[in-house]
Amino acid sequence: MSDARPASGQPVIVLVRPQLGENIGKAARAMLNFGLTELRLVSPRDGWPNPDAGPSAAGADIVLDRAELFDSLADAVADCAHVYATTVRKRGVTKPVVTPEEAAREIHAATGRSAYVFGPERSGLETEDVAVARKIVTVPINPEFGSLNLAQAVILCAYEWSKGAQLQQPTVVDLGEPAPQAELDGMIAQFDTLLENAGYFFPPDRAPATKRTLRNLLTKPGWNHLEIRTMRGVLSALGNPRQR
Amino acid sequence: MSDARPASGQPVIVLVRPQLGENIGKAARAMLNFGLTELRLVSPRDGWPNPDAGPSAAGADIVLDRAELFDSLADAVADCAHVYATTVRKRGVTKPVVTPEEAAREIHAATGRSAYVFGPERSGLETEDVAVARKIVTVPINPEFGSLNLAQAVILCAYEWSKGAQLQQPTVVDLGEPAPQAELDGMIAQFDTLLENAGYFFPPDRAPATKRTLRNLLTKPGWNHLEIRTMRGVLSALGNPRQR
Repeated sequence: MSDARPASGQPVIVLVRPQLGENIGKAARAMLNFGLTELRLVSPRDGWPNPDAGPSAAGADIVLDRAELFDSLADAVADCAHVYATTVRKRGVTKPVVTPEEAAREIHAATGRSAYVFGPERSGLETEDVAVARKIVTVPINPEFGSLNLAQAVILCAYEWSKGAQLQQPTVVDLGEPAPQAELDGMIAQFDTLLENAGYFFPPDRAPATKRTLRNLLTKPGWNHLEIRTMRGVLSALGNPRQR
Repeated sequence: MSDARPASGQPVIVLVRPQLGENIGKAARAMLNFGLTELRLVSPRDGWPNPDAGPSAAGADIVLDRAELFDSLADAVADCAHVYATTVRKRGVTKPVVTPEEAAREIHAATGRSAYVFGPERSGLETEDVAVARKIVTVPINPEFGSLNLAQAVILCAYEWSKGAQLQQPTVVDLGEPAPQAELDGMIAQFDTLLENAGYFFPPDRAPATKRTLRNLLTKPGWNHLEIRTMRGVLSALGNPRQR
């Protein structure tokens, strides 16, 4: 899937000075879930490769294997035309702030490579890092409880990007066409007969309205052929109880 | 923020048979980031409260403190009119499948309580659990690498919900709202009893599958309070025919 797209169509995920290998692995896992495979690491605290990354990547090894190492953020995004710094609300930053949704839309519309830049787990991006970016991405979170970890921030950006990437399989579930009207009518007639025999339509002058109510109710589901057949089996059982 | 909304405006997060306390804590953290505070637990493997939940909640204690414990999924969603089962692609399920985005839009437009239901970490929801829901939520992920953990699935649903939470949705009074799950369950139980008495569930070992088919069929319509009441009247009539 990622291979089906030109390499430049996919945004790069840049982790700046990530601390724990485990979190690098989690970020890789988050990325691959949504079809992102290009990971770039700027001065990871514990070097690279890091044996702690593999287990938490949960199989997203291809992302870790292809990860590229850089000494500076500037180097890491040198080939990118659109650099988005992800931050929580920052004071005194005079750059456009967009949501992950808006960033994803822009990236899909753009030509040239794009990059999402994430800061270290504890402190986030430094002002100098943010300065490299043209825009800021901020996830709108609960103002009273903002506690997104690195992998969660990555997954939300990747998820939004994937919406436009046609990576989604159309979730076509064949619910089964509603059965032809004749089948529905046959079931309703069976229901009516059963209820008539049970003395349900009483008093008789209200029967037409009651039957209409029942018809509306049984038409609503849009039951398919199989479902209608099941219901008819149910009605037959009720009409002719087994000898017990 | 969550307190600014009426309690009923917020969807409930239901974790069915969660295994690790740590993951319950992570789910709580994911929820609170996006303003969700109502957590319901169905038969957590290691009981409740669980000391492992707190540390991974990273401060989302209010969600854990208020978490409610239930013996069955049916009890946990008894007051909910809109129940969404979250699953990865399932074969042979004949329910509408929506994305987290679509589910969130529907929940904001709906009256009546909504619930997102999540299965155990390893196995996901059982077929019986899914049968309780009217719709399925599936996150469209990389078909070649689907590896979302529980907290990630929760955070994506909560994130999508939060997008619409800022907007003041006019509360449309819709008399056609599906009845709360408890009413539906009552009707299904009555149906089952009636059919049992009629000897419908034969051979006995196929009864569970047959009952599930029936539940799915009867869940599909989204019948409202009045319709459910009508159906119950019909079933009563069939169970106790008038003397003629």
